[in-house]
Amino acid sequence: MPNINPVELILAKREGKAISAKDIASFIENYMAGAIPEYQMSALLMAIFFQGLDAREIASLTQSYIDSGQIIKFPAELIVADKHSTGGVGDKISLMLAPIAASLGLAVPMISGRGLGHTGGTLDKLESIPGFRTQYAPEEFQALVEKHGCALIGQSDALVPADKRIYALRDVTATVESLGLITASIMSKKIAEGSEHLVIDLKIGSGAFMPDLGKARELSKLLVSTGASFSQKVQVVFSNMNSPLGLAVGNALEMVEAIEYLKGNPLRDTKILTTELTARLLLSGGLAASEREAVDMIQTAVSSGKALAKLEEIITAQGGDPRVLDDYSLLGKTSVKIPVLAETGGYVKAIDARAIGYALVRIKAGRMQVSDSIDYGAGALLIPKIGDCLEKGEPIGEIHANDQAQAEEVVRLIRAAYTFSPEPIEKEELILDTM
Amino acid sequence: MPNINPVELILAKREGKAISAKDIASFIENYMAGAIPEYQMSALLMAIFFQGLDAREIASLTQSYIDSGQIIKFPAELIVADKHSTGGVGDKISLMLAPIAASLGLAVPMISGRGLGHTGGTLDKLESIPGFRTQYAPEEFQALVEKHGCALIGQSDALVPADKRIYALRDVTATVESLGLITASIMSKKIAEGSEHLVIDLKIGSGAFMPDLGKARELSKLLVSTGASFSQKVQVVFSNMNSPLGLAVGNALEMVEAIEYLKGNPLRDTKILTTELTARLLLSGGLAASEREAVDMIQTAVSSGKALAKLEEIITAQGGDPRVLDDYSLLGKTSVKIPVLAETGGYVKAIDARAIGYALVRIKAGRMQVSDSIDYGAGALLIPKIGDCLEKGEPIGEIHANDQAQAEEVVRLIRAAYTFSPEPIEKEELILDTM
Repeated sequence: MPNINPVELILAKREGKAISAKDIASFIENYMAGAIPEYQMSALLMAIFFQGLDAREIASLTQSYIDSGQIIKFPAELIVADKHSTGGVGDKISLMLAPIAASLGLAVPMISGRGLGHTGGTLDKLESIPGFRTQYAPEEFQALVEKHGCALIGQSDALVPADKRIYALRDVTATVESLGLITASIMSKKIAEGSEHLVIDLKIGSGAFMPDLGKARELSKLLVSTGASFSQKVQVVFSNMNSPLGLAVGNALEMVEAIEYLKGNPLRDTKILTTELTARLLLSGGLAASEREAVDMIQTAVSSGKALAKLEEIITAQGGDPRVLDDYSLLGKTSVKIPVLAETGGYVKAIDARAIGYALVRIKAGRMQVSDSIDYGAGALLIPKIGDCLEKGEPIGEIHANDQAQAEEVVRLIRAAYTFSPEPIEKEELILDTM
Repeated sequence: MPNINPVELILAKREGKAISAKDIASFIENYMAGAIPEYQMSALLMAIFFQGLDAREIASLTQSYIDSGQIIKFPAELIVADKHSTGGVGDKISLMLAPIAASLGLAVPMISGRGLGHTGGTLDKLESIPGFRTQYAPEEFQALVEKHGCALIGQSDALVPADKRIYALRDVTATVESLGLITASIMSKKIAEGSEHLVIDLKIGSGAFMPDLGKARELSKLLVSTGASFSQKVQVVFSNMNSPLGLAVGNALEMVEAIEYLKGNPLRDTKILTTELTARLLLSGGLAASEREAVDMIQTAVSSGKALAKLEEIITAQGGDPRVLDDYSLLGKTSVKIPVLAETGGYVKAIDARAIGYALVRIKAGRMQVSDSIDYGAGALLIPKIGDCLEKGEPIGEIHANDQAQAEEVVRLIRAAYTFSPEPIEKEELILDTM
């Protein structure tokens, strides 16, 4: 039996009162033990959506999430750092950042998610590598990071199981978009995995969950203050998600783009963002004395081949086939390739990145349900960014798929996601702000 | 599978949008069929608590509640009327109103509830009569009303089962206090039971759910407009619940007070309220042409013994022992009687009627959980109302119980529920307003 009255706690939050750390802990504990049913949790989540959580309550909730599972403690001599992205379209930054950072001496215990809805997931991209294993017990995960400087795995039931269960409930009760709940969900995972330094890529725009910088600033304050109450140094980079990131959207295609980056062929936007995020971790961890030095270190990690070697080491350590680094066809094959041509010329005025993400679900480059299967090879290469100028009939990009009819529909949908203007349109900054 | 997306419907309400009649119907239908789980219903209920329901949505929800079960249709020649009280302490008005109204030619299909928390329930009071049966199928219920002009029964699963299930969920998810949900819950039952005329005793004050007249007026507008959309004539009487009603609080004690009333020994406040509520039904149903005539009819129903005879007829028809009308000991016995004496003299300034209700749960005159057992004989006789003057040592009342230790605690708690002032305090009106 709960040693709190769940109805009184829901009522208190409904009335806008702050809940004590003890009561939050008891509510979560009893929920996880099955003594508080789903319907009381969902009522509380909706009350929280409307009344919010203050900084102290968020820290308490984060602590309760962490307490629901194991915690990883790395040896004190390691400088443990991680990156979190709030999710976007074409966001493969982790695939470059993790090996670069690990090759420069940071320990990167990266726990990633799967794609859902319009956004992709690092885990799916990694699983386009034949044999690549992403499920590990916390002890195995820790050993991988200590040995190789990095491991890239999926969320397990052993770490913050309360977050996993509550996130699934939020998803089906329209209670996802609560800053307090988002903060506790992000931070609990990043604290339980043992990171001391965290950089958050808070994406804003048509392909992101955050529509504007105002709301994003609010969230970033909560993320930083929550990190601080767990002695974690959190930095936030606000990045533009009005254009898909890089060239590729789709699992194998993004993996190829990441490998090419590490071979010394980076794209402009992914290079800016990867460098910004990685540099902040190097500075926070004390491995670089200045931004200049950090940027140089990152350049060298790529140009020397150290970062690519680190990726190879990680792939091998996690059971993946390292031949993918040279033979991209191992990552996934597609029988259909259709160009997407501009029907009118002009300057790209807007890109509905979210619509692109949803369109690609049709060729299984993404999924709508957790249980949907993925076609690793499927995806799109998308060239222009906002402000770029195209002639009529010039390629917007190319669809790679294994289903001709669906691919044709995707071409139509993606073409419709681009709006052109006859007048010049100003190009947008990728990094909007930092904190 | 639901033909609506439950998450989208919850989200729409969360964002303050109005839900279509079709979507409300589908949500309730699928919930009752088990296709929508409790946790989505509770999330929706909490979203409704914050965003409200407009008049059209309330009518749609009421319709969906009604559609979840059977509906009673009385022959057109009957004038079907009922009363609903929002619940108070010492509220035994139904026990007088129903037989008086039935003896005057109204058909009264009264479905009552059980006591919970600080408020009593008509059903428990009736069940203090040995043999009195309160569970009937809709057809039996209808037959009883058609034959005897009245039946007093409990809610069954056959009528508005959706309300019963959703009410139970609201109770454990802190979503009771929503005007829209309250309105649909009250009105669906009163429409499904076939009433054309309804008077609502909307109680306000320390012993009521409504703390003030403002909120009560809001609710009453919703009740009247919802009734109107189902061709039901609804009147609302706002009554004062700052003092317990009548003398007795407790099941057998209240039954005795009601029988005494019908024997021609009414108390001042119960007479005012019973007369007001019954007169409104006689006028609405066209059985009286003026308030004066209605009041005279009610007086005569009591003084002639017709109302008492009707109560005897109802008791007998529902399997109860009619000897209780003369031998009150059959209703329940208590071994402990302790006076509650005023520790200080003065004018009664305030009575915490809610605290009195909760105190009496200790001697099982009421219950905290639906499953708690009741001691029918247990209760209190409470004399002074706000504004009355007592000398120090004069009796506030008397506790009847079967547990000496608990009774002594109740004496202490009830004494503490009365606040005295050395200065005269104005007596309060019982009827605050009507609509």
